[in-house]
Amino acid sequence: MFCESNKELKTLVEEARTYTKDGKVADYIPALGKANPNDLSIAINYPDGHCVSAGDVSEKFTLQSISKVISLALVLIDRGSKEVFEHVGMEPTGDPFNSIAKLETMIPAKPLNPMINAGALVVTHLLKGSTNDEKLDRLLAFIQTLANDSTIGYSEEIARSEYETADLNRALCYFLKQHNRMNEDVEQLLNLYTKQCAIEMNCLHLARIGMVFAMDGVDPETSKQVIPKEVARICKTFMVTCGMYNASGEFAINIGIPAKSGVAGGIMGAVPGRFGIGIFGPALDDKGNSIAGIKLLEMLSKNYRLSMF
Amino acid sequence: MFCESNKELKTLVEEARTYTKDGKVADYIPALGKANPNDLSIAINYPDGHCVSAGDVSEKFTLQSISKVISLALVLIDRGSKEVFEHVGMEPTGDPFNSIAKLETMIPAKPLNPMINAGALVVTHLLKGSTNDEKLDRLLAFIQTLANDSTIGYSEEIARSEYETADLNRALCYFLKQHNRMNEDVEQLLNLYTKQCAIEMNCLHLARIGMVFAMDGVDPETSKQVIPKEVARICKTFMVTCGMYNASGEFAINIGIPAKSGVAGGIMGAVPGRFGIGIFGPALDDKGNSIAGIKLLEMLSKNYRLSMF
Amino acid sequence: MFCESNKELKTLVEEARTYTKDGKVADYIPALGKANPNDLSIAINYPDGHCVSAGDVSEKFTLQSISKVISLALVLIDRGSKEVFEHVGMEPTGDPFNSIAKLETMIPAKPLNPMINAGALVVTHLLKGSTNDEKLDRLLAFIQTLANDSTIGYSEEIARSEYETADLNRALCYFLKQHNRMNEDVEQLLNLYTKQCAIEMNCLHLARIGMVFAMDGVDPETSKQVIPKEVARICKTFMVTCGMYNASGEFAINIGIPAKSGVAGGIMGAVPGRFGIGIFGPALDDKGNSIAGIKLLEMLSKNYRLSMF
Amino acid sequence: MFCESNKELKTLVEEARTYTKDGKVADYIPALGKANPNDLSIAINYPDGHCVSAGDVSEKFTLQSISKVISLALVLIDRGSKEVFEHVGMEPTGDPFNSIAKLETMIPAKPLNPMINAGALVVTHLLKGSTNDEKLDRLLAFIQTLANDSTIGYSEEIARSEYETADLNRALCYFLKQHNRMNEDVEQLLNLYTKQCAIEMNCLHLARIGMVFAMDGVDPETSKQVIPKEVARICKTFMVTCGMYNASGEFAINIGIPAKSGVAGGIMGAVPGRFGIGIFGPALDDKGNSIAGIKLLEMLSKNYRLSMF
Repeated sequence: MFCESNKELKTLVEEARTYTKDGKVADYIPALGKANPNDLSIAINYPDGHCVSAGDVSEKFTLQSISKVISLALVLIDRGSKEVFEHVGMEPTGDPFNSIAKLETMIPAKPLNPMINAGALVVTHLLKGSTNDEKLDRLLAFIQTLANDSTIGYSEEIARSEYETADLNRALCYFLKQHNRMNEDVEQLLNLYTKQCAIEMNCLHLARIGMVFAMDGVDPETSKQVIPKEVARICKTFMVTCGMYNASGEFAINIGIPAKSGVAGGIMGAVPGRFGIGIFGPALDDKGNSIAGIKLLEMLSKNYRLSMF
Repeated sequence: MFCESNKELKTLVEEARTYTKDGKVADYIPALGKANPNDLSIAINYPDGHCVSAGDVSEKFTLQSISKVISLALVLIDRGSKEVFEHVGMEPTGDPFNSIAKLETMIPAKPLNPMINAGALVVTHLLKGSTNDEKLDRLLAFIQTLANDSTIGYSEEIARSEYETADLNRALCYFLKQHNRMNEDVEQLLNLYTKQCAIEMNCLHLARIGMVFAMDGVDPETSKQVIPKEVARICKTFMVTCGMYNASGEFAINIGIPAKSGVAGGIMGAVPGRFGIGIFGPALDDKGNSIAGIKLLEMLSKNYRLSMF
Repeated sequence: MFCESNKELKTLVEEARTYTKDGKVADYIPALGKANPNDLSIAINYPDGHCVSAGDVSEKFTLQSISKVISLALVLIDRGSKEVFEHVGMEPTGDPFNSIAKLETMIPAKPLNPMINAGALVVTHLLKGSTNDEKLDRLLAFIQTLANDSTIGYSEEIARSEYETADLNRALCYFLKQHNRMNEDVEQLLNLYTKQCAIEMNCLHLARIGMVFAMDGVDPETSKQVIPKEVARICKTFMVTCGMYNASGEFAINIGIPAKSGVAGGIMGAVPGRFGIGIFGPALDDKGNSIAGIKLLEMLSKNYRLSMF
Repeated sequence: MFCESNKELKTLVEEARTYTKDGKVADYIPALGKANPNDLSIAINYPDGHCVSAGDVSEKFTLQSISKVISLALVLIDRGSKEVFEHVGMEPTGDPFNSIAKLETMIPAKPLNPMINAGALVVTHLLKGSTNDEKLDRLLAFIQTLANDSTIGYSEEIARSEYETADLNRALCYFLKQHNRMNEDVEQLLNLYTKQCAIEMNCLHLARIGMVFAMDGVDPETSKQVIPKEVARICKTFMVTCGMYNASGEFAINIGIPAKSGVAGGIMGAVPGRFGIGIFGPALDDKGNSIAGIKLLEMLSKNYRLSMF
């Protein structure tokens, strides 16, 4: 994928990079902790195939929570929104993404939305396929199509490491299972979910996926509707209301772009009808979002009036 | 204000009206309980001055929670967003609008957003003016400008009745006061707040106000920027993330229009760059939104592809 | 009241006093903040009229939360346990005494027990009397009988000061009122409640009251049953399960005496069938209990095997 | 074990039995659901070896939560109270026994007390032994000594069935593990815990164990201190403050006996210095306590003034 280096973007990246010192790389597994906190890169992918970038765009990172919105898209395609929303809600929440408390106060333990861990686990368990391998292959094929790169895979090291430390997600799964929100074998589900989270790419790929969401699910190179418009719309709505953990509201106010972040430092943005954005900056703020990535998006949104609102 | 009756809208209203039987009129004060549950009316106001409507559009109702977004606009004009967001947060919440629980778990008791009661009370206490009368007059003048009708006032009967039954809001105020989120005399604030909620208009007015928000704060008749673009943007963002109580997420997914509802049965919508919507249908669903009003917006959004996402 | 100074007690007091430096005097109102953090005194009152003490026993302090158990006794006498427990529950809670959160999650907002503020406010509102003065006079007369001292009154300065800063209790009252747990005028109730909390005595008085509870409600000097046995039993049970804020469980394990503490630094103990204890030590631990007072009781309980369990 | 049938007890049992129709047998596993809801039996074991009973005392049942207090005793013997209370708290809670919410709001996820499931799991994980078999054998031997019957074992059918449906306990375990409150393999721990809960006996055994607790840990037949006095004291304190789920406070007020119940319908009581009580009545009230068993204890407590308070 070719993407030309852009001077204006580079200036913004250098300005945003000064904020990395106030952030911290995720270190709950060693592999994530090895990331360079000063890294910051961005790519912007336009529907006409044009791409501009700044920073070391070849740097790979794992999707982590960004995968939640992509697996949601595939599950919505697989099952239809009616079935999916019988299993998971649509409401944003001011609680942290890993909170179990609200699950308990709700009858009947239906996760509030697909962007919190409990909801994302329910979504992943709805992926079609007779085995985990089949489900993962389908998800990877979907992502490869979106990113237009058939070499995209997942990091076995990170998947294994996440799997071994996934006790909070285990707790969420067993809680959901107890309340009949899922029937699946928990270890099997976590095996799949941690691989999904460990899918690896660079910010060029992420920008291209964001661009397909921005173009209502149409891949402009092939003119194919790879995501139904309705599904793309639902995903972008969740990106606005709950894409940035419990800083989603602030992000919507200050930046106003459908976006989803992950703890490895990635942020995928989709500016409706215009372009996709991929950012990688592993130093995180206290909500778990790329601290410099958010600053960069804020500058972009202000300078180019990107807010939808 | 002239608004021509529209046949297509009328058909939709009649279809939506069948849902009123599943809803219930708010009855926590007698005056609201007297509303006719079968009522349903809508007006759509275009920036070119054109207006289409259906149902009995002369029916008056009180703004209730819809006033939250208008007082927020005025307070943002008065104080600037920096000062305002020191007092109130930006995050949506899955909790009901009148919940006190989350206030307690947060340090330092900062209301999550300006659309829940705790946040709206904080916003109203930031209105500029040396007396309650002055504050209310300023708010009324602002609303009269937005609606282009200098006769808009408030219902003294409903304001008084709300004031007398406002014990939950009293609890919220004293809780906030204890935690130094406000210094004002609670009874004075409630006196003002209940008058704000009791501001009365019909759906033509509401559609016109929504249209000004939709047009980024510009009144097209006068070409004046009556709300700064930035303020209109912030308000519309809150309308999307938390405008419909704890059904905001579902509304964003299914309908995708910045909107704010009130328990008297009003809904104000702002379709960016296109038009404003005013709806009145007092039969409410279990979340407190006009049950037929939501159906009507759902049909409009599907038929005319109004979703922003 | 004569109480002889006791050498053994004095040694224990001096040992316990070393812990006062780890505590802090309550300072939410200036009058409490003026207390000397090093103060520590104790009196033990036996049913035969014998009394032993150590420290400056003439030092006066306000009852604060200790009054909750005495007003409960009077209300149980006034109304009977059946009526009282329709208004307030019997369950201990791990939450802080001033929490509003659990009230909200419970239907229908019934305070968990009479020792948390919400429950104590409900109890006080059940005191019989046609005016606040009458209610307070009855409570004072009851306390004067228990303490055998007709000069006991309340501190007007502290009552006023508490009243002015009682916003959290105001919030609790309005919340309860909204949910129909009480009908009374909130300011009237707070006026009464803050006077109840400001009732003033020294540790000799407190020990004597504790002794009457310890003797199943019989005043041994007059042989009169001043508290019905059943009422004394209920009060002592609450003292065990929720007398020491959210350190009640630890206190029951380590010390095992029915006891009630207040933020002015008082602790009233009732060792069943044996004697009453009055302690004053204004330096508090982080749960709001007298830090040296608890240490002193721990030593007494260990040395003289006072635990009921 | 000989226990003479007692006419007075029989009358009380027949009176209490009328309440069984308002209760429901636990049915979350089939084996428990098979119990006869009309069953009600009681045994009272005196330190002089005397025993009185009524109902079908040969009926066996599993200990379930009653085992929590016995494993706590053994773990306190094994580790000492200082170490144990680093892992689990001492505070009662108004929340249900299986709630995860409060764990989340506490730093660092320390279970509030050993009688809620989270706390009991932590206690069981502290049992000494190099294998599960060794730990279980030690616990069984301890119970056999207390009950003076070396044939006591556990129900493999119930243990297996509980293990298979223990998803909520799995959730609690993984939550605790995530927060470093335990390191053990969760399935191993649940295997042990479900066997502990499935230990089977009749109400004669239960009465004898209660008697040993009542006698401060001394087995009167052998005069041996089988439980250190301090440990017996701690256990009885927890039985008072949190032995009857979230009806513990009410039980303390109305009955006032250290007692622990289980969902199979057992209740073990320990009247300090006097006798032990074993009850079996599988029809449960909405808090999970034997509905007729509680009534029976209430009558006994009133008639024979058994309350400690």
